[in-house]
Amino acid sequence: MTLPSKTRLLDTVSLPADLKGRSREELKQIADELRAEVIDAVSVTGGHLGAGLGVVELTLAIHTVFDTPDDKLIFDVGHQCYPHKILTGRKDQIRTLRQGGGLSGFTKRAESEFDPFGAAHASTSISAGLGFAKARDLTGKDNKVVCVIGDGAMSAGMAYEAMNNAGSDMSRMLVILNDNDMSIAPPVGAMSHYLSKLVSSRSYRGLRKFAKSVVKPIGLANPARKAEEYLRGFAMGGTMFEELGFYYVGPIDGHDLDVLLPVLENCKAMESGPVLLHVVTQKGKGYAPAENSADKYHGVAKFNVVTGEQQKSKSGPPSYTKVFAQSLVAEARKDDRIVGITAAMPGGTGMDLFEKEFPDRMFDVGIAEQHAVTFAAGLAADGMKPFAAIYSTFLQRGYDQVVHDVAIQKLPVRFAIDRAGLVGADGPTHAGSFDIGYLGALPDMVCMAAADEAELVHMVRTAVEIDDRPSAFRYPRGNGTGIDLPEVGQALEIGKGRILREGTSIAILSYGTRLAEAMKAADMLAAQGLSCTVADARFAKPLDEDLVNRLAKEHEVLITIEEGARGGFGAFVLQHLSDVGAFDTGLKIRTMCLPDIFQDQDKPELMYEQAGLDARSIAARAIEALGRGNMQAIDQLARA
Amino acid sequence: MTLPSKTRLLDTVSLPADLKGRSREELKQIADELRAEVIDAVSVTGGHLGAGLGVVELTLAIHTVFDTPDDKLIFDVGHQCYPHKILTGRKDQIRTLRQGGGLSGFTKRAESEFDPFGAAHASTSISAGLGFAKARDLTGKDNKVVCVIGDGAMSAGMAYEAMNNAGSDMSRMLVILNDNDMSIAPPVGAMSHYLSKLVSSRSYRGLRKFAKSVVKPIGLANPARKAEEYLRGFAMGGTMFEELGFYYVGPIDGHDLDVLLPVLENCKAMESGPVLLHVVTQKGKGYAPAENSADKYHGVAKFNVVTGEQQKSKSGPPSYTKVFAQSLVAEARKDDRIVGITAAMPGGTGMDLFEKEFPDRMFDVGIAEQHAVTFAAGLAADGMKPFAAIYSTFLQRGYDQVVHDVAIQKLPVRFAIDRAGLVGADGPTHAGSFDIGYLGALPDMVCMAAADEAELVHMVRTAVEIDDRPSAFRYPRGNGTGIDLPEVGQALEIGKGRILREGTSIAILSYGTRLAEAMKAADMLAAQGLSCTVADARFAKPLDEDLVNRLAKEHEVLITIEEGARGGFGAFVLQHLSDVGAFDTGLKIRTMCLPDIFQDQDKPELMYEQAGLDARSIAARAIEALGRGNMQAIDQLARA
Repeated sequence: MTLPSKTRLLDTVSLPADLKGRSREELKQIADELRAEVIDAVSVTGGHLGAGLGVVELTLAIHTVFDTPDDKLIFDVGHQCYPHKILTGRKDQIRTLRQGGGLSGFTKRAESEFDPFGAAHASTSISAGLGFAKARDLTGKDNKVVCVIGDGAMSAGMAYEAMNNAGSDMSRMLVILNDNDMSIAPPVGAMSHYLSKLVSSRSYRGLRKFAKSVVKPIGLANPARKAEEYLRGFAMGGTMFEELGFYYVGPIDGHDLDVLLPVLENCKAMESGPVLLHVVTQKGKGYAPAENSADKYHGVAKFNVVTGEQQKSKSGPPSYTKVFAQSLVAEARKDDRIVGITAAMPGGTGMDLFEKEFPDRMFDVGIAEQHAVTFAAGLAADGMKPFAAIYSTFLQRGYDQVVHDVAIQKLPVRFAIDRAGLVGADGPTHAGSFDIGYLGALPDMVCMAAADEAELVHMVRTAVEIDDRPSAFRYPRGNGTGIDLPEVGQALEIGKGRILREGTSIAILSYGTRLAEAMKAADMLAAQGLSCTVADARFAKPLDEDLVNRLAKEHEVLITIEEGARGGFGAFVLQHLSDVGAFDTGLKIRTMCLPDIFQDQDKPELMYEQAGLDARSIAARAIEALGRGNMQAIDQLARA
Repeated sequence: MTLPSKTRLLDTVSLPADLKGRSREELKQIADELRAEVIDAVSVTGGHLGAGLGVVELTLAIHTVFDTPDDKLIFDVGHQCYPHKILTGRKDQIRTLRQGGGLSGFTKRAESEFDPFGAAHASTSISAGLGFAKARDLTGKDNKVVCVIGDGAMSAGMAYEAMNNAGSDMSRMLVILNDNDMSIAPPVGAMSHYLSKLVSSRSYRGLRKFAKSVVKPIGLANPARKAEEYLRGFAMGGTMFEELGFYYVGPIDGHDLDVLLPVLENCKAMESGPVLLHVVTQKGKGYAPAENSADKYHGVAKFNVVTGEQQKSKSGPPSYTKVFAQSLVAEARKDDRIVGITAAMPGGTGMDLFEKEFPDRMFDVGIAEQHAVTFAAGLAADGMKPFAAIYSTFLQRGYDQVVHDVAIQKLPVRFAIDRAGLVGADGPTHAGSFDIGYLGALPDMVCMAAADEAELVHMVRTAVEIDDRPSAFRYPRGNGTGIDLPEVGQALEIGKGRILREGTSIAILSYGTRLAEAMKAADMLAAQGLSCTVADARFAKPLDEDLVNRLAKEHEVLITIEEGARGGFGAFVLQHLSDVGAFDTGLKIRTMCLPDIFQDQDKPELMYEQAGLDARSIAARAIEALGRGNMQAIDQLARA
């Protein structure tokens, strides 16, 4: 006897075409099954749960009404796309989400023609959608373009830039504002207040009744003709969007298919100009543990479906993020000029701890990295000591501001760069690969990388003391090494590294947390009688030239290693050594860095192995350069 | 007999304090003299004329009403600051504007305490101002913060991010929107239409009368008390700004001191929340040749004050910008999938030529580089061939979008990177120093640099053909070398350089337009019997590894040279050579790049000499590395 499938109707849907012609009741049943399937899949894989649960009905309605993939559906951020993946041919793989070799946790062009534009960073969808709209118009096609963007993403400047552009030239496209009043943290900013006002208006509260009585009778009967007048009936305000040239519709209930389907039909039938459809949803909808959670189960570990209990990671050393936050709090107790800045990531960066103790000195500016950086520069220009805690990958959003507002003016903004290096399940869009190069190129910038969590404590202190120029310190995602933490941070000497192990043949100069692998490699090599020096550079800029010169001079082989792309720390070492003529008479030098590809998600340690930045690979590189040594012996040790 | 000074009253003003207590009539006279002085100075130095003329009265009024430098006055972009510099202790140096060793053409912290925050790129002022406002509040100070931002700058996302943040937490600051409906090019975007609507409203047209009759009687009598009611009288709309949490005042006539002074007094007296004062000005005001010009004399050469005629640069080879634009137009005639994108710089990038011929295929998105890049990615994702023409320094604004939306998705967006390398009078904020490194670090990116204008023609063609991944080609500000231009561009082989001169001892590998200096250096060295190979790399990525290997193998000395910062082309060459063990047995290699400082403005050729990237410096470096050769002989040749 086989059990009846919990996804009986959903099982009949392979592709969006299978949704066409279904009754409203069937669609509601499919929505319920889709929700259950998302919960079940994420309980196995971990990942972004709340966002997907919030758009189950919306996703289903869009695929029912529009003709994807000819019509282009672009999800902003993309972490809400699990229901979309299930409906677009990826149901069978859904339990591989975010696993090595499996489905990406975001939309991804390479994965499906139903993902016309990938995402992961916020606020890109309207710009991309406008590109699709213009391409369509220029080539005489007639497809629709639909962007789904959250209210949190609306705080980013690029969303505004795109609306400003789209609204001005009257491009035909539909932007669905998915308003759940909750991006990752509670949203901030005037736009968010504005949206709340629209939603809390009496008109919206009366709308659900209105929808039941009016929408159903009109239904799908003659959508095109009545579209204009009909939709006007919904427009309750939205002046700001209308001033930006959008036709504003809403707010409507994003969980009610009886409203969603006819409204989307009507939006689809509209022939001119950009439309903004304001949809109100609940993050985590339909799963009690998520609905009741403060962050609506934004990103979760594997969990028990019945209890909602998330699998705890083995208790171990504290995360780098937490060590950073605690260190900054400790420093801020002694110095009231220290202020904190986050761009909508108070939890992810640990700045929520800072905010708890210093609510007046913490600024969450929303998803707005450009503003965050220049705001910090303004604070520094008036004598404060701002710490801008921003992930490496997101700091790319504020690069010009780092150059133009911070570095050129030599202002002492401190950049706490979390998620440096590979990040695991979030994949290439979230990897912190480029900051060593793009910051190290800037005059006067001090660049540090923590080799372990104790070093991070010292670097926070060091950054507090660097008050005449900008500084940055990077540290990875995940837990520290378990090393004892110092009571208080000690300021490091600027531009000075440290030697951890003295040897004679091979020198390994590490920048960042590969230091542990470098030490392991040294052990492996020592077992063969190949004597290793291991040093921690601490600074990529200013470079410890004395240390580099000495390592080069006193060893046959010099290897640099870092958790970043080409053109970073190793490149700076090479440029220094070539400047001083260190290669003139020969030096066996190798730089080890991230490979020149965008690596797909996997477990971080596996990703580093693939990247060739593990202990075995370091030892192999040393043996290759040295021209002697036994790789088989190394491999035996590596397996041991 | 001495002539009476044309700036009799202005001569009595050294600092803003000297404006206090002046009669309205005296202030008007000072404004007239200030305008004349700006015109006269810029006729000698060249520079940004129209912007400064537009804010003569506004600048004077701000310094009269507010207490700078305690009150913080932050000009957005800063190219309108010449009147400000004259009033703040820099009158005597005003004829050194934009010259080597002289005043910067923008605001600059290092230059004066009256410049609390420097600028040059647009749209940073509100973020910086908010930083000052928060620093003030946290330290218990009571100064005012005034930001002056143009309407064009309001199209940039970071201005919106800042308003969204400032409007939400009710920071006490004044943002003056200087609306001249003309940034550099006519402004674009919905925000611009919105501002026009506010200004063209009947209320504004009636306002000047209102101002004369109402403002004067109220005058400066009891500003604080009446501020609230009084200012409300001006508010005609501005809903969008009010939704963003700003108290909107305006629009008012920015050339009428009788209106400006009392309104500013009242704004100053307001005690809570951010205020947006909408001021209407005319770019180029008061100088007929400027008022009548299409771009209102945005950036001018030295000119004749009476006729307005600008000094023509000696007729010479066409500019790189023009060669790029003409090449792209030629390609676009053959391929209707080619589309053009500019971020508010149609003239500066030459895309106005493209627009003239293909108005439907050219998109000016406003000052909005983030959106520009992702918009281009959307176009590419739907099969178009987008060319995004953006200055190197401004592409920094779209860096995350290049990484996240273009490179990770491997979309064939073509980046035409103008103003690569040093740019002369605009100084460090406009230098294109970092793109080689920040683009070269990205997987799959093709990076080219044109050695001369003929090469640029070929690179445009090459970029058209690169349809499976992103590409970028960089070229400098200014005129080409005068080389014959090819009839049609020929696609270059990807990742292959070329050898221009074969020799035996020294190899110079150039990336970009330093090639001419490299050839000169080779001549100098040859005169001493030191035989030189000179090669043009063409590609920084993919690197011509065969060429690099060969140059390394067959020469005693290898020198790389580029117009970019450390971590760029030379670093990539070094990393490749160390990978293959080319240094194991010795190689005299040197990388020449921009020095690790932000270079102040000067003539470009002098700046390159200071940077040590001229022919003499190349020869010197070769002789140093080689350990033989005669620098005195080189110096003689260099002087000849």
